[in-house]
Amino acid sequence: MSGGATSSLVWIDGRLLAPGEAGLDPRDRGYALGDGLFETMLCREGGVPLLARHLARMRRGAEVLGMHLPPETELAGAVARTVKANGLQDGAVRLTVSRGVPEVRGLLPTGRERATVVVQAHPYAYPEELYRRGMEAITCGIRRNERSPLARIKSLSYLENVLARREAAVRGADEAILLNTADMLAGASAANVFLVRGGGLITPEVDAGALPGVARGVVLELAGRLGLEVEERPVEPGELAAAEGCFLTNALMGIMPVRRVDGRAVGGGEARELVARLRKEWERFLSGRDPGSPSSVR
Amino acid sequence: MSGGATSSLVWIDGRLLAPGEAGLDPRDRGYALGDGLFETMLCREGGVPLLARHLARMRRGAEVLGMHLPPETELAGAVARTVKANGLQDGAVRLTVSRGVPEVRGLLPTGRERATVVVQAHPYAYPEELYRRGMEAITCGIRRNERSPLARIKSLSYLENVLARREAAVRGADEAILLNTADMLAGASAANVFLVRGGGLITPEVDAGALPGVARGVVLELAGRLGLEVEERPVEPGELAAAEGCFLTNALMGIMPVRRVDGRAVGGGEARELVARLRKEWERFLSGRDPGSPSSVR
Repeated sequence: MSGGATSSLVWIDGRLLAPGEAGLDPRDRGYALGDGLFETMLCREGGVPLLARHLARMRRGAEVLGMHLPPETELAGAVARTVKANGLQDGAVRLTVSRGVPEVRGLLPTGRERATVVVQAHPYAYPEELYRRGMEAITCGIRRNERSPLARIKSLSYLENVLARREAAVRGADEAILLNTADMLAGASAANVFLVRGGGLITPEVDAGALPGVARGVVLELAGRLGLEVEERPVEPGELAAAEGCFLTNALMGIMPVRRVDGRAVGGGEARELVARLRKEWERFLSGRDPGSPSSVR
Repeated sequence: MSGGATSSLVWIDGRLLAPGEAGLDPRDRGYALGDGLFETMLCREGGVPLLARHLARMRRGAEVLGMHLPPETELAGAVARTVKANGLQDGAVRLTVSRGVPEVRGLLPTGRERATVVVQAHPYAYPEELYRRGMEAITCGIRRNERSPLARIKSLSYLENVLARREAAVRGADEAILLNTADMLAGASAANVFLVRGGGLITPEVDAGALPGVARGVVLELAGRLGLEVEERPVEPGELAAAEGCFLTNALMGIMPVRRVDGRAVGGGEARELVARLRKEWERFLSGRDPGSPSSVR
């Protein structure tokens, strides 16, 4: 979510900048046009356990944009060096790759741009207090366009999510849940949405405007291993009222229960145990004690 | 449209940078989240005739974003100094204002950020050749979300327009026309769309996802003065086939006829005279020989 200082060393194209140092060309298409991609990743004990999944998603995003991405080894190296330079143990790492400085003005990229790589690293502690009380969410007025290719990638054109989060804050909530243009659930401003029903899970499908979140993907796998029934499908907002529980997922928070949506309680606490079980599996997965867990970069 | 070198002096927060000099903090929310606004303005004989209208639109955008904008005199001064420093006579000036470097991580702005101001200036010549032949347009697969507040402001989250323009280029066209989520005409990737019918004009309304373009606003005024009937309303894409002509408007091109959409001719040339008349009025308006024309900044 938010919090943490923004005053650590920032990697940009092979250099580590002191806080406040300007290292970016203002002509960069990432700044001018929101033309680029980013990943926010969890750092644990100096490693980034889900790095390979984040890089794979960024690769798919680059295909949608027709953007050349530096080799994964180079991106992984930039992440590792930034984490190390900041002495980060537990925290958040943000990797940004933008299309770079254009050769000619205008919307159309030439395809010969050299991508810009930025890495930021910050301390981040799991919000245990928020986990215990559960999040307050709203369904916000902004609709996600499930027919846009941008709904399926994590791009620098992220302002809609900023506006959704602002609406949540104005209404005194922690997070905003967005519907799509067909008035079905899509996702939250920086998380995926899951409902608990009949002891199984329901989550909006990617075609409904759900971002293919890295944590979402892991949770779907863990649920499968726990023998939980999982439905990825269009979800009516009215299903929230009938749900036994609701939780959000993202790479930093992992699994975070939702207490109320639009001021109405979701479930009566009966899903609490299932959410706790999933979170335990998530932690096990991250710590690598799980046979299927990903390798870490140090 | 495109073209022109990108190697002129760039204004950033009171400094003029040499080409290629890095002056932007990579933590800026404009880069990280597409959180900001921009205007692309026409420069004529060293002045910016539509500056006041562009600044007014930016002001409305800032209200939507809840973003503090520097005073208009400061923005106008930055524009004037950048134009002068580059010795620009006829060209394009881009003003970018982003929310700036955040105090804390996360989506939510604190409201205490200091905005970043960037100005770029480039030579630009009216594409007479394109005017004579008429543009080739496509209706592209990307839908504009007319229910998003972003559809009504010119924000740095502009990647959808980049993808639309790429689709046009791949299909051998100059511009992409976007439909909205209700399959009605919205606008082009960097222009507004007008149809000529019965000697009058039809253009998609702002509620249909048409950006309130500065040139669009001027053309609506000029059409009114010429006694042309103007309808701002939802427009079916099928109406293109029945139109006597079609043209696009933006602040750089002014008025630009469309020859074909998706390979099919639009009109049989009967609207050509009306388009030429409008363009003449547009030029008169810009040159200030018009009693209602705006003041210029030098």
